[in-house]
Amino acid sequence: MIRVGVNGYGTIGRRVADAVKKQGDMELAGVTKTKPDYKSMVAEKKGIPVYAVDMKSLEAFRAAGASVRGTLNDLLQRVDVMVDAAPEDTGAAYKPVYQQASVKTIFQGGAGDMLAEASFVAQCNFDEAKGKRTVQVVSCNTTALCRVISAVDKGVGVARARAVLARRATDPDDVKRGPIDAVVPDPTTLPSHHGPDVQQVLKGLNIVTMAFKVPTTHMHLHSLILSLKKQGARREDVLAALEAAPRTQMVDGKSGFKSTAAIIDFARDMGRPRNDVYEATVWRDSVTVVDGEAYMFVAVDQEAIVVPENIDAIRAVHGGYTKEQSMALTDASLGIAHR
Amino acid sequence: MIRVGVNGYGTIGRRVADAVKKQGDMELAGVTKTKPDYKSMVAEKKGIPVYAVDMKSLEAFRAAGASVRGTLNDLLQRVDVMVDAAPEDTGAAYKPVYQQASVKTIFQGGAGDMLAEASFVAQCNFDEAKGKRTVQVVSCNTTALCRVISAVDKGVGVARARAVLARRATDPDDVKRGPIDAVVPDPTTLPSHHGPDVQQVLKGLNIVTMAFKVPTTHMHLHSLILSLKKQGARREDVLAALEAAPRTQMVDGKSGFKSTAAIIDFARDMGRPRNDVYEATVWRDSVTVVDGEAYMFVAVDQEAIVVPENIDAIRAVHGGYTKEQSMALTDASLGIAHR
Repeated sequence: MIRVGVNGYGTIGRRVADAVKKQGDMELAGVTKTKPDYKSMVAEKKGIPVYAVDMKSLEAFRAAGASVRGTLNDLLQRVDVMVDAAPEDTGAAYKPVYQQASVKTIFQGGAGDMLAEASFVAQCNFDEAKGKRTVQVVSCNTTALCRVISAVDKGVGVARARAVLARRATDPDDVKRGPIDAVVPDPTTLPSHHGPDVQQVLKGLNIVTMAFKVPTTHMHLHSLILSLKKQGARREDVLAALEAAPRTQMVDGKSGFKSTAAIIDFARDMGRPRNDVYEATVWRDSVTVVDGEAYMFVAVDQEAIVVPENIDAIRAVHGGYTKEQSMALTDASLGIAHR
Repeated sequence: MIRVGVNGYGTIGRRVADAVKKQGDMELAGVTKTKPDYKSMVAEKKGIPVYAVDMKSLEAFRAAGASVRGTLNDLLQRVDVMVDAAPEDTGAAYKPVYQQASVKTIFQGGAGDMLAEASFVAQCNFDEAKGKRTVQVVSCNTTALCRVISAVDKGVGVARARAVLARRATDPDDVKRGPIDAVVPDPTTLPSHHGPDVQQVLKGLNIVTMAFKVPTTHMHLHSLILSLKKQGARREDVLAALEAAPRTQMVDGKSGFKSTAAIIDFARDMGRPRNDVYEATVWRDSVTVVDGEAYMFVAVDQEAIVVPENIDAIRAVHGGYTKEQSMALTDASLGIAHR
C-alpha cells in the first residue's frame, strides 16, 4: 500500500483525497486544513483524518472543538508520498518541509513556476517521473493541451500548434474574484505562459498560446489550430487520432452539447462526483481541416482534469508500475471509459 | 443635403440617427419605431421625427398619445437614403418596400445573408459602393476583422489569417438572452461564417474563423493569428501598420487597459455618447511576431463600430464624395482621431 497525504483541502486537494481513497493500492493517511470549516466537517464525516497545517492552526481546530489528529509534521511521518495541494504560490514554501521529512512529493503546476524535477502528464511522460523524488502535475490548461496535441501528433503529426484559451474566471465556490461582464486578456502581453509549460512535457513542440479570462466558473474553452505534418491529412484522420486518445472524450453539438454548461450537466447526470469531468472534451463537430491545419474546440474542467494525473504521479514516484498499469487502475477507479 | 431615414431605432438605429444629425451634409428626415416606449420618448425629446412602421403600429402610438408623424411609407417619401436598422432577419422583408419607393438603402450585415449589391467597410472598399442602390455594412466582427487585417496586409502582407472570436452574449439592454456562466461555441461546427463575410470585402483573403459566446454585454474580443508575407517582418513593422490604420486605436495593458471593461470605461471618461467605441481597439502590448506569424488581441464594440461605416455608406451610394472626403467628415463629426 502506498501511504498518501494531501496537504491542502481545497479544489484539488478534496478531489485527490477522494480519488486516493478509491485506489486499491493506496491508503489515505490524512489531509491538512488551515482552519475548521464545512470542508473539514465533510472530511470528518467521510472518515478522512484531518491534520492542522501548523500549531496555530491546531489551536483553531481545538478551540472550535473540531476533530484534528495533529499537524502537517505528524502527517508527514505517516506517508510515503505527499500531494501538495496548498494554495497557489505556497508550494515553494512547503518544499523544504517535505524534503526534511524525506517524503516524495507531487506538486501542482502553476504559472510557469518549476518546483519539481519533472513536469507530468501521465499519457505523455509517465516514465520520466519514475524514480524522481518530486514531480509536478502541470496545470489544467496545460494538461488538456498536452493530451489533445500529443494525440493528434501521434496520429498525423503536429508541426506547429496555436491555442487560444478562454479561461473560466474562477472556481464556483470563490466569490471574491472577477471579472463580471468583461473579458480580461491575461496577460495582455503575448504569448502566454501555457506554451512553455506544454514544452516542459512535449519537448520541442512549436507552440504559441494566448489566454484571457471570461466571466464563467465552469470549464475553460480552448480553440486549437494545429498545422499538420502528414500531407493531405483529412478530418477523419484527426478524429481517429482523438478517438484513440486516453482521457479524451468526444461530444457533438447536435447531441445537445451546445456549451460548456451542457458538458457539466452531462457529468452531473452521469453521477460523476462533484460533476467532475476528468477528460479533455473535444467537440467532434468542431474538428475541421483547412489547408493542412486542424481546428477544434476543447473544453477543460479546471477542477477535475488533473485528478487522474495526480494519482498516476503518486504511482510513478513510488515505483513498481508501468504507465499502462497505473493509468488502467486510475481510469477504472474513476469511471473514465477506455475505448 | 442628403435626406436620410432610419428604419428601426434599436442598438444601431439610435446611434446612426444621432450620427446623421452630426453631419453637415445630411438631414435626418426621421426614424421608425414599432411601438412607443422610452426610446421613442428620447427621440421626441431630441426633436427626431418618429414614424410608425405600419398602420397597426401607428394606432399604438396614437392610443398612447405619443408623438408620431405617419408610417414608414410616409417617411420613405421624404428621404434619399434609408438606413435599414430593423431587427435581425427583417431586412429581407423590408427590401421590396424600399425598392418600390425607389430609395437607396443601407442594410446591416448579419450571419452570412447578402441583401445588397455590395458589402462595405469604408477604408477597404468605399469605391465599390459608389453608384450602387443597395449596400450592406458588414457586421461588427467583420468590420473589425477587415480594418485590422487590411491594415496589416497593407504594411507587411497577410498570407493567411486565423481569428478566434469571443463574442459578447448580447447587448446591455437585452435581458432575455444568455448565456450566464457558460461558454457557447457558436456554432459548434467550424469554421464560423465570419471568414466568408470578411471575404465579401477583402476578396481572396485566406481566412478561417472560430467563434463562441461568453457571458458579457460589452465588446467582443478577437485573438488574431496572421501569417505574414514579408520575410523577416518584425513586431515593429506590424505596429507601424496598425498605427497608420484609420479607425483603429492602440491601447496598452500597462496604461490600465486590463480588460474590455477598461476600454468602455475610457470611452465613458472621454465623453463618448453612450460610451461608444467606434475604433477597432488593438492591445499594443499583445502584438507579437513568432516565426513569421503575428499575434494580437483586438476589442470590438458591437454597438458602435459600424456607425461610421453607415455614415460613409450613405455618402457612397448618394455619390459626390471620395473615400477620403467622406471618412474625414465622418471622423471629425464623431471625434475619431486622425493620426
